[in-house]
Amino acid sequence: MDFDVVVIGSGPGGYVAAIRASQLGMKVAVVEKEHLGGICLNWGCIPTKSLLKSAQVYEYARHAKDYGISIKGEVTADFEKIVARSRGVADGMSKGIQFLFKKNNITVINGFGKLAGKGAVEVTDKDGKSSRIGAKHIILATGARSRELPNLKQDGVKVIGYRQALNLPKQPKSMLVVGSGAIGSELAFFYHSVGTQVTLVEFLPNILPLEDEESSKFMERIFVKSGMKVLTSSSVEDVDTTGPLCKARVKTPKGEIFLEAEVVLSAVGIVANLEGLGLEDNGVAVERGKIKVDATYQTSLPGVYAIGDLIPTPALAHVASAEGIACVEHIAGLNPHPVNYANIPGCTYVTPEVASVGMSEKAAREAGYEIKVGKFPFTASGKASAAGARDGYVKLIFDAKLGELLGAHIVGMNATEMIAELVVARNLEITGHELIKSVHPHPTMSEAIMEAAAAAYGEVIHI
Amino acid sequence: MDFDVVVIGSGPGGYVAAIRASQLGMKVAVVEKEHLGGICLNWGCIPTKSLLKSAQVYEYARHAKDYGISIKGEVTADFEKIVARSRGVADGMSKGIQFLFKKNNITVINGFGKLAGKGAVEVTDKDGKSSRIGAKHIILATGARSRELPNLKQDGVKVIGYRQALNLPKQPKSMLVVGSGAIGSELAFFYHSVGTQVTLVEFLPNILPLEDEESSKFMERIFVKSGMKVLTSSSVEDVDTTGPLCKARVKTPKGEIFLEAEVVLSAVGIVANLEGLGLEDNGVAVERGKIKVDATYQTSLPGVYAIGDLIPTPALAHVASAEGIACVEHIAGLNPHPVNYANIPGCTYVTPEVASVGMSEKAAREAGYEIKVGKFPFTASGKASAAGARDGYVKLIFDAKLGELLGAHIVGMNATEMIAELVVARNLEITGHELIKSVHPHPTMSEAIMEAAAAAYGEVIHI
Repeated sequence: MDFDVVVIGSGPGGYVAAIRASQLGMKVAVVEKEHLGGICLNWGCIPTKSLLKSAQVYEYARHAKDYGISIKGEVTADFEKIVARSRGVADGMSKGIQFLFKKNNITVINGFGKLAGKGAVEVTDKDGKSSRIGAKHIILATGARSRELPNLKQDGVKVIGYRQALNLPKQPKSMLVVGSGAIGSELAFFYHSVGTQVTLVEFLPNILPLEDEESSKFMERIFVKSGMKVLTSSSVEDVDTTGPLCKARVKTPKGEIFLEAEVVLSAVGIVANLEGLGLEDNGVAVERGKIKVDATYQTSLPGVYAIGDLIPTPALAHVASAEGIACVEHIAGLNPHPVNYANIPGCTYVTPEVASVGMSEKAAREAGYEIKVGKFPFTASGKASAAGARDGYVKLIFDAKLGELLGAHIVGMNATEMIAELVVARNLEITGHELIKSVHPHPTMSEAIMEAAAAAYGEVIHI
Repeated sequence: MDFDVVVIGSGPGGYVAAIRASQLGMKVAVVEKEHLGGICLNWGCIPTKSLLKSAQVYEYARHAKDYGISIKGEVTADFEKIVARSRGVADGMSKGIQFLFKKNNITVINGFGKLAGKGAVEVTDKDGKSSRIGAKHIILATGARSRELPNLKQDGVKVIGYRQALNLPKQPKSMLVVGSGAIGSELAFFYHSVGTQVTLVEFLPNILPLEDEESSKFMERIFVKSGMKVLTSSSVEDVDTTGPLCKARVKTPKGEIFLEAEVVLSAVGIVANLEGLGLEDNGVAVERGKIKVDATYQTSLPGVYAIGDLIPTPALAHVASAEGIACVEHIAGLNPHPVNYANIPGCTYVTPEVASVGMSEKAAREAGYEIKVGKFPFTASGKASAAGARDGYVKLIFDAKLGELLGAHIVGMNATEMIAELVVARNLEITGHELIKSVHPHPTMSEAIMEAAAAAYGEVIHI
């Protein structure tokens, strides 16, 4: 065997699996067809956060006066420079992966990898040359791409996916964003922030449909107040791209309307990159577009594993990484603690930020729990007032009987940082009173967590 | 009896105690001689955070170009407006306390309160009129003020304390800050940020002397690199205020030097406000400038309690609040869980922020622990790169034998928010591996916590 482990795909599932495998003494290779770091580093999590940081700085500069800072002259968002910065950040992170691979003695094989019989991977490089490498264990981690709907075919110019949206040559005057999950909402927010006229269309009744309904409604109000157009319970039926502007036919609860926009961004979910992996030829079972795996991430073909967006777990970078580590630890015989899929945080980096972990209020009720809900608004927080960030709240849902923290929902500045506390708290099965009695530092946004817990038990101080 | 509980002082100890007492069904009055909310709201935590937010916005505006934002024209920090904003924030919070008192049916008595025999408080109003109120329980919560050293007498104009520093009529060109605890460091940082030439003098070998040595050294390098002058192991021997500038004689390891500055800020600690409370007359025992209390915060005089900066526990707003709640819950016979003084976070809101909980590395070693230390730098964090905030790190200290998290030290953007996770984690006696296996969202600064834990156990991925 050439390698103990060959990982196909170097995104946050694959590269993390490779590094952990190397740490555990295995000889490891990674096959990558494009960029080290995959979508997350190059076309996802990282470059979007860079764009959103620029939007934040723009917002501060435009409202500097509110903070006692005088700016004489015009403040403009220089779209090309904002994008260039984000590409630079992504490139820097990708180089970081290269460094980590080198440090961990991981062989990088550039090319497209596919299964080629038991213990073998065939790699085809960009010139079409194929080679075969042997591997005791093969981890499939090729991730996913933007889903194309039949009535919303992406041409990459007028109708685009997230990839193009991260690297447009110039700022569109108007944009129709279809789908309001984290990707759609973040890009809609970014483009709106820098001055593009944005319409956000969501098929379901609420934007950010994976979030607690209250978070969704709150953010819809914020978006609308900021001037973004939001259409919920609506769907784009088709787009005519023949004219200078795209013309979209949109079904809304009030009837059919036509919307014009320079660019249509389709953000209606993702689809796993299964094609060309040799799954069928090698008898790897696939179900509803995802690879079937057991609790150790092994597919139906022994010695072949799949992680991340390829399998039917939440399509999130941190899930892929956790699965990569668990998968490799299984291979090493370490018997790792299984990934707790009930305790995976989700984040949306708009302003205010939205983050959550565990059950929504509705889900908790539907699961039959008798619940106590505690909510604390940032309007009552000293830190939020000092920071000029009074939008949002912390909402915690407890099981009324056992005191278990069933769910946590935060909307507000730094929500995406604050949520980690609740992940850890839930991991350790915290009760409401243990949370109330954890002395949070003053003045912080995180005090609102303690106060929300106190609110659930009638002990809140500041409201 | 007029009241079940009379609280003297309405700072974060007193007002929180009063609200909790009211919640528990007691009839409550608060005696306040000046501002509702005390120093914390009016002259401490809250207005400083407002000033520091303005400094942050100024920094973003000055470096907007780095984020792709163009500003044509001059960016200036308008000192008077920055101060006015901070006063406005403080006033707003103080009004919030007024609202909370009203909502909780708490009687506010304006005046100076003192003990007047068993179950009685004498209040003298600003006109010198005295009245007497009866109380079953009296909670002393009068806080503290800036400590005056004999060789650094505060005249309030040239040699000032934090109070004057928060409300100077105009920005000084130069400032000598004596003492580099949280207050001194935050004000030095603020004034330096808006363009005042600042020299920070610390008697001990490290600035932020309560922090882990590594945090202190890191921040000293940051401060010096930014152009602030920092003198450690140095002391201000005396200040000549007769000339147009203050002339300070400073003893440094390299000999005596003279420093000139428009203003000298003394931030050499605090002293409890014991005077005039009638402690001696009523037999309330005092030791080394602080009131002696038992585990229920009761003083040597039954029915009289003391909390916050009056007692020899850490002089922090969140400690005072926790003590206020515990004190009142004791009075109500609830047998509350005692405040865990080993698990109190400390925060300094400079840039990058500094936060910690538990033992420093040195303290852990001196306590005889065999330790594992894990450190993760933000230079290796994708979120930090995207946010342009690569300064800092997370450092975690574990007991090598039992895996207990002994201490956590964070320097970096949002450190003061991130530390809460470690407070909760320590409260629930987390082990290193439980922390590693808590899936933190990507991309966040808080991932560095998981990675630092992994680093302690040889499992770190991104370095």
